[in-house]
Amino acid sequence: MSEFNNVTVVKEANIYFNGAVTSRTVFFQDGSRKTLGIMMPGEYSFNTGSAEVMEILSGELTVLLPGSPDWATIRGGEAFEVPENASFELKVTAVTDYCCSYL
Amino acid sequence: MSEFNNVTVVKEANIYFNGAVTSRTVFFQDGSRKTLGIMMPGEYSFNTGSAEVMEILSGELTVLLPGSPDWATIRGGEAFEVPENASFELKVTAVTDYCCSYL
Repeated sequence: MSEFNNVTVVKEANIYFNGAVTSRTVFFQDGSRKTLGIMMPGEYSFNTGSAEVMEILSGELTVLLPGSPDWATIRGGEAFEVPENASFELKVTAVTDYCCSYL
Repeated sequence: MSEFNNVTVVKEANIYFNGAVTSRTVFFQDGSRKTLGIMMPGEYSFNTGSAEVMEILSGELTVLLPGSPDWATIRGGEAFEVPENASFELKVTAVTDYCCSYL
């Protein structure tokens, strides 16, 4: 297990797609922000504001990144980056635990 | 929105019932612990170690507490307490966001 120390956690969850995707927002002392979330199996479209790094802690999904012709399979321990102001598609094939860092 | 400051958050989620119930563990400077979690609609049985206070942030469920003859409906903004070393039953009727405090 790893942990984040001396952080602020927003108590209320972020709830999307009727609860199929949920997360908690974590603020760091340097002002940066991450979300720790869960995605249930399903297909989802997301849009970024700032660029994001999606670190997959456990589970499995395939992602179609902007400008990419192919879906990429991502598993626990792997990550992918999404540019700012972009859309991306996910097919979550196993309950997925993730950490999203906003760059 | 409310928040917890100067806390430690365990990065990896607690995942139960194939992802239908998930949570994040938060440690406080006084040594106490809470979990912030999501329950998808469904029926669940839980066991407590220490006593717990389940604060429902949003959503709706009914709970059958140990020794109680009736199911009680709990909605966002309400809470219930479960004694230590006890079992309780939940019927979650709407995606429920909760904060569990371990006493």
